[in-house]
Amino acid sequence: MEQIKYPSPSQWETLLARPTASYESLEPLVREVFNAVAQNGDQAVSDYTKKFDGVSLESFAVSEAEITAASVEVSVELKRAMARARLNIETFHRAQQTQKVYLSTQEGVDCWQEKRPIESVGLYIPGGSAPLFSTIMMLAIPAEIAGCKERILCTPPDQNGAVNPAILYAAALCGITKIYRVGGIQAIAAMTLGTASIPKVYKIFGPGNQYVTVAKQWATKYQVAIDLPAGPSELLVAADATANPRYVAADLLSQAEHGPDSQVVLVTTSESLLAKVEKAIEEQLKQLPRREIAAKALANSKAILMSSDKEAIALINAYAPEHYIIMVANEQAYVDGVQNAGSVFIGPYTPESAGDYASGTNHTLPTNGYARQYSGVNLDSFLKAITFQKISDQGLQDLGPEIEVMAAAEGLYAHKNAVSIRLKDLS
Amino acid sequence: MEQIKYPSPSQWETLLARPTASYESLEPLVREVFNAVAQNGDQAVSDYTKKFDGVSLESFAVSEAEITAASVEVSVELKRAMARARLNIETFHRAQQTQKVYLSTQEGVDCWQEKRPIESVGLYIPGGSAPLFSTIMMLAIPAEIAGCKERILCTPPDQNGAVNPAILYAAALCGITKIYRVGGIQAIAAMTLGTASIPKVYKIFGPGNQYVTVAKQWATKYQVAIDLPAGPSELLVAADATANPRYVAADLLSQAEHGPDSQVVLVTTSESLLAKVEKAIEEQLKQLPRREIAAKALANSKAILMSSDKEAIALINAYAPEHYIIMVANEQAYVDGVQNAGSVFIGPYTPESAGDYASGTNHTLPTNGYARQYSGVNLDSFLKAITFQKISDQGLQDLGPEIEVMAAAEGLYAHKNAVSIRLKDLS
Repeated sequence: MEQIKYPSPSQWETLLARPTASYESLEPLVREVFNAVAQNGDQAVSDYTKKFDGVSLESFAVSEAEITAASVEVSVELKRAMARARLNIETFHRAQQTQKVYLSTQEGVDCWQEKRPIESVGLYIPGGSAPLFSTIMMLAIPAEIAGCKERILCTPPDQNGAVNPAILYAAALCGITKIYRVGGIQAIAAMTLGTASIPKVYKIFGPGNQYVTVAKQWATKYQVAIDLPAGPSELLVAADATANPRYVAADLLSQAEHGPDSQVVLVTTSESLLAKVEKAIEEQLKQLPRREIAAKALANSKAILMSSDKEAIALINAYAPEHYIIMVANEQAYVDGVQNAGSVFIGPYTPESAGDYASGTNHTLPTNGYARQYSGVNLDSFLKAITFQKISDQGLQDLGPEIEVMAAAEGLYAHKNAVSIRLKDLS
Repeated sequence: MEQIKYPSPSQWETLLARPTASYESLEPLVREVFNAVAQNGDQAVSDYTKKFDGVSLESFAVSEAEITAASVEVSVELKRAMARARLNIETFHRAQQTQKVYLSTQEGVDCWQEKRPIESVGLYIPGGSAPLFSTIMMLAIPAEIAGCKERILCTPPDQNGAVNPAILYAAALCGITKIYRVGGIQAIAAMTLGTASIPKVYKIFGPGNQYVTVAKQWATKYQVAIDLPAGPSELLVAADATANPRYVAADLLSQAEHGPDSQVVLVTTSESLLAKVEKAIEEQLKQLPRREIAAKALANSKAILMSSDKEAIALINAYAPEHYIIMVANEQAYVDGVQNAGSVFIGPYTPESAGDYASGTNHTLPTNGYARQYSGVNLDSFLKAITFQKISDQGLQDLGPEIEVMAAAEGLYAHKNAVSIRLKDLS
C-alpha cells in the first residue's frame, strides 16, 4: 500500500480519485446484441450463448427437476448457513416497510403516499469460478418482501449447460419465480426486450463484468431501470492505535481478493499502526489462495495518515466509501460523522464479511463515490411511491382561488380553467 | 381525439405506446459544451450564454439586491398563494420523514438504517414565456426538509440578463442557497463539473427542453445523479357515465396546453360520455390562449372505450400514467387497482391543477411509462439510506461459523479469514 502522510485538503480530490475506466469501446458489440435480440429473440440469445459461452442450449429455463437435484448436492452446512442468512436479511428488510403516509394538508384536501411493488424484476448473477449465491439472497429476499410478482434470474451456463447447485438452491430458497441459464449481454438484452422464453422486466439488478455493465447501462435506453451505476468494490478502514492490526489487515485483504481493481483504503491517526498493518498483511497474504489478485489490488491501494479524528472523518466523507469499517476508540464520533457511505461496520467484531453474507444488511451498495447520492439496495429499491389526493367541494372552494392565481401567473389558463369551471358550479 | 372502442389486450401495447423521440443527434453539441466547460469553466459558460441566450453577463450569481427588488414586483395575491402552496407542500413532504430502522437480527448482531441528506443538489428551471416557479417549490422545499446543505438553482437569463421576479421570489421563499442566471446545456455542465463561480453538485433536478434533457443524461457519465428520465407530460382520465363531461374536458385541456407533444388519454366505460367530452372540449378550447398548442396535443390523443371497470383498470396500469384522474362511481375499485401511476387525483373536485400547484403532493413525476419502476420526486429523492451494523464478540461467535461456510463456498478465503482470525482470538 502506498503511504500518504498528512495530505492537505487541496490534495484530497486527486488522492481519493478512483481509477476511471471507459467501456465506450464495448458499445458497438452491446448495440449489436441488443439489435439482434430485438429482431430474432430466442434465436439470437441462443446464437450468442453458443458464441460467447460455447454451449448449445436446448432450453433456457432451468427445470423443476434440476432445481430439486441441485438441492441434494448442496451440503447440510451450507444450507444451514443460508437459512440463517435468509432469516437475518429478511428480518432487516421487512423492518424497512413503511406505512402509508396519510394526512389532510388543509381541511378537505387529503393527500397520501403509498408504495406499490415493481411488478417484474430481473436479477443477473455472474458465472465464473465462484457461485455468488449470496447476491441472489440480497436481491431476491427484498424483491419477495416488496411483493414483486415476477422475480426472474439470469445466470450463465457452464460448459455443460448447467448452473451451479448453490445458485439454484439459493434462488429456490429465496423465491425466485424462474431461472434462465443465460448470461452476458444477451441475458440483459433478453430481460430488457423480452423474448418468447424470457420475459421483459421493468428493473434489472445485479453485478457483472464490463460487458454486463455496459449492457445494463444500454438497457436504460429502453425504459428499463437498473439498481446502481457500476464500479469496482471498495473498502475503507478507519483505525487508530487501539485497533488490532491483524483484524485491519484481514479486512483489507478480504476486499482486495475481489479483483485486481478492488479499492482498499486505510485511514488512521496512528503512525505506528501503519507499519503494523503492513506487516500483518504480509503475513496473512501468504496463506490466501487468491493472493495474486489481492497483491495487485493492494499495490494500487492507499494508507493515509491524518492529524486528527475530525480531519479523518472529513476525508472519509470526501471519499464516500462503499464499505466503511470503524475500529477506533472514539467510535461514536466516527459513527455520528458518517455523511457518505454505503454500509458501515462498527467495532472489532464486525468484519465486512458479516454484512457480505449474513448480518442482515444488503451487500449491493454504491461504489465509486456514488454513496454521495445513492442508497444501497434496500426494500424501497423494489417499490415505487405513488401519491394520491382527494379534495372535497369545500376543500376546492378554499384552495381553488390560490391555484387560479398561480396558474395564471405561469400563463397556464387551461390549468386555471380546470379549477374555475368547478368553482363556478359550486358558487 | 382518436376514438378506440373495445381494444383487445393484444392491441394495448401499440395503442398505448408513447411517441419515441431520439435526441442522439444533439449529443455532439452536448459533448462539445461539456468539454468546453471542463476546460475553460466560467469563460465557456459565458461564451455559450452569449451564443445561445444572446446575453453578455457580468456575473452569474443573482445578488441579494436583485432578490429583494423581485419581491416588490410580485403581487400580494401571488405571494399569498405561494405561501399556502408552500405550507401544503411542506406539510406533506415533512410527513414522509422516516425513523431510523433499528433492530437486532439475532442476539449481538445490531443492524440499522439511517438516512442522510445529499449534501449538494442543483435545480434547473427553464426560462421562456412562463416562469415555472411552482417547480422550484416542488424541488426546493423537500431539499430543505431533507437537509441538503447546498441547494442551488440555475435558470436562463432573459434578453436583459434578468430573471423573472416570481422565480426569484419563489427561490428565496423556499430556501435556495444560491441562484445563477445560467441556462441550457452550459448550466447542466457547470453544475456537473463545477466552475469557479458555480459549484459542482451531486444530483440535478428539474425539467427542460430537449437540450437540457440530453445534457442531464450526459451528466450521469460524470457521476452525477438525476431526478428522473425525461419525457413529455401526460394525463389519463378514467371517467364513467356519472362524470361531468365539462370537468373531464377541462382536465384533458389542462394537460394538452403544456405542449404539442403532451399525452392525453381518456378511458371510459360509457360510450355516451365520449361524445359529450368531445363537445365540451370544442367549447372550452375556443376560450384558451394556448388553444393552438392544446389542439395539436389533442390531435395525437386517444379516447378509449372499455367494456368493464376491470378491463379499464388493467389497461390503465399497462399505460402507467404520470397523472391519473379518477371520476367514476366505482371509485374505490379504481383507487385500489392502482399499480402503476405517478400521482392520482380522485373525485370530481380534484383537478390535476391542484397537485400541480398546491395540494401538497409533488408534481415532478415519472412520464413515458416510467411509473412502472420509478417514484415521483419525494423526500427520499434528496436523501441516501445508509446501513450500519455492530456485532458483539458473542454475536460473532454465534454468526461467524455460518459466514465462514458461505465465504468458503463462494471461494473467498480472505472473507472467511476476516472472521476466522477473530474467532480464534475469542476461543
